[in-house]
Amino acid sequence: MAQKNKFLQISVVGGTDADRSTLALAESVGKAIAEQGAVLICGGFGGVMEAAARGAKERGGLTVGILSNYKKEKANPFIDITIPTGLGHARNFLVAASGDIVVALSGSHGTRSEVSAALLLGKKVVGLKAWQEIEGVHRVESVAELKKYYFA
Amino acid sequence: MAQKNKFLQISVVGGTDADRSTLALAESVGKAIAEQGAVLICGGFGGVMEAAARGAKERGGLTVGILSNYKKEKANPFIDITIPTGLGHARNFLVAASGDIVVALSGSHGTRSEVSAALLLGKKVVGLKAWQEIEGVHRVESVAELKKYYFA
Amino acid sequence: MAQKNKFLQISVVGGTDADRSTLALAESVGKAIAEQGAVLICGGFGGVMEAAARGAKERGGLTVGILSNYKKEKANPFIDITIPTGLGHARNFLVAASGDIVVALSGSHGTRSEVSAALLLGKKVVGLKAWQEIEGVHRVESVAELKKYYFA
Amino acid sequence: MAQKNKFLQISVVGGTDADRSTLALAESVGKAIAEQGAVLICGGFGGVMEAAARGAKERGGLTVGILSNYKKEKANPFIDITIPTGLGHARNFLVAASGDIVVALSGSHGTRSEVSAALLLGKKVVGLKAWQEIEGVHRVESVAELKKYYFA
Repeated sequence: MAQKNKFLQISVVGGTDADRSTLALAESVGKAIAEQGAVLICGGFGGVMEAAARGAKERGGLTVGILSNYKKEKANPFIDITIPTGLGHARNFLVAASGDIVVALSGSHGTRSEVSAALLLGKKVVGLKAWQEIEGVHRVESVAELKKYYFA
Repeated sequence: MAQKNKFLQISVVGGTDADRSTLALAESVGKAIAEQGAVLICGGFGGVMEAAARGAKERGGLTVGILSNYKKEKANPFIDITIPTGLGHARNFLVAASGDIVVALSGSHGTRSEVSAALLLGKKVVGLKAWQEIEGVHRVESVAELKKYYFA
Repeated sequence: MAQKNKFLQISVVGGTDADRSTLALAESVGKAIAEQGAVLICGGFGGVMEAAARGAKERGGLTVGILSNYKKEKANPFIDITIPTGLGHARNFLVAASGDIVVALSGSHGTRSEVSAALLLGKKVVGLKAWQEIEGVHRVESVAELKKYYFA
Repeated sequence: MAQKNKFLQISVVGGTDADRSTLALAESVGKAIAEQGAVLICGGFGGVMEAAARGAKERGGLTVGILSNYKKEKANPFIDITIPTGLGHARNFLVAASGDIVVALSGSHGTRSEVSAALLLGKKVVGLKAWQEIEGVHRVESVAELKKYYFA
């Protein structure tokens, strides 16, 4: 008989040009997602996306990169499965739509578009030290808090 | 010889469930766009989208509705040209991308996704009594101010 | 009162690298669409798209180009309204979806994707000296026949 | 150190309303993909998509369903990872774009749109007892032949 594996899917969104502490936080989120047995979904490129994917792979997790272009080889090296959409920035909606939970770190317009899309789609959106100014975002201060309240 | 008409295109975004004063403002924006000889672009449905399109048609303007579904007949009655994308909420990116200028009235997550998309694409985004909390949005207090500074 | 103009919308699809007789045919289709008072929808670039748009403008028609990229300036010079989707080849579905009728001239994979999308969406697809091998396509041999049976 | 798993990705496309022999063939393709260690990509719904995913899971493979709607729960029970795009039929382009190889079984307009999209993107497209009328499709008569020439 076929073995079914409906995975919990957790999207991580955040800036491409992130500072060191944000990247460290992203890597911790990636580890936590893998430890939880969930699949990490992200935009597949650099910055927060790459740090989170690296964290997930360090814990043996599975990672999916939903790219804005058609170039599979442009995914960061920690992406297992690549969805090269070619959709341009509209791919942000797919990253948001593919998470059962969306974890948002600090970022700029692209990240805000993903947070907005996720809220529009009725997703649970957790802002990790970020985005508390947007109504509907659940703010947490640490990965420990994220795990405690949202990954249980 | 063929007559060429590259129109200035102005996108108007804002809430579906808008209050009376926002709808009145949207209608004034639509009128101003038509008076300017520009084409009004919007999401084609109700609320701010419909009020703006009605305003544009009251001044003999041309209106385009970029729909999230495939149902042309669901466009509001003031839409001349319908682009029924079937793309779901991802159509918000197209509304943002299609404006040379994006005018944003108050709204919720959908509007914020359009403002974010427009900023991500490097568009000039004018917040009409709204969205000043987002970096990069040019806030104006009236349609007169909008016309003076942005439609010149 | 607002004047409502629900236009008939006719999409024209066909190859970018088209031969002379196909381009002449495309231009005639564009003229016929404009004479019909319909709006011409196309992909906005070269080949059949440009010839059809040129024909429409020669008869004072209105043209819409749904681009695959974000670069409005890449539209051919006969496009009045530009929808720069940034969606890559997926924009082909939008060209198909936006026509009440889809007229297909000879072309390659891109055109076949548009014909297939149009049939999938239940559109009336007319193959002008082309695509008769696809079930569901109505083949005609001339623009006169196209006008007689489909633009009436 | 992080373990990197760049998987070979193989997309399977074909009809929702498929006959018994096509479904059996699809299941065999799914098994062959899993035995190859590749990830199966499909549209996530019924018919050929479900049969192929069931085959892959019977051999312990990994399956991805790229859905046209936002409803993860509508994926067939053999899908591990769900990408609920909400893009309507335009998701067909993503199924095509996500495969390093695209295997096409018999189907109708939707399948033809996927074959066309894959060819447009320069993918290797193998028609399994189908689609030989489209230039560029490599026709094979059996799963054994498919494995021998394309999965080596």
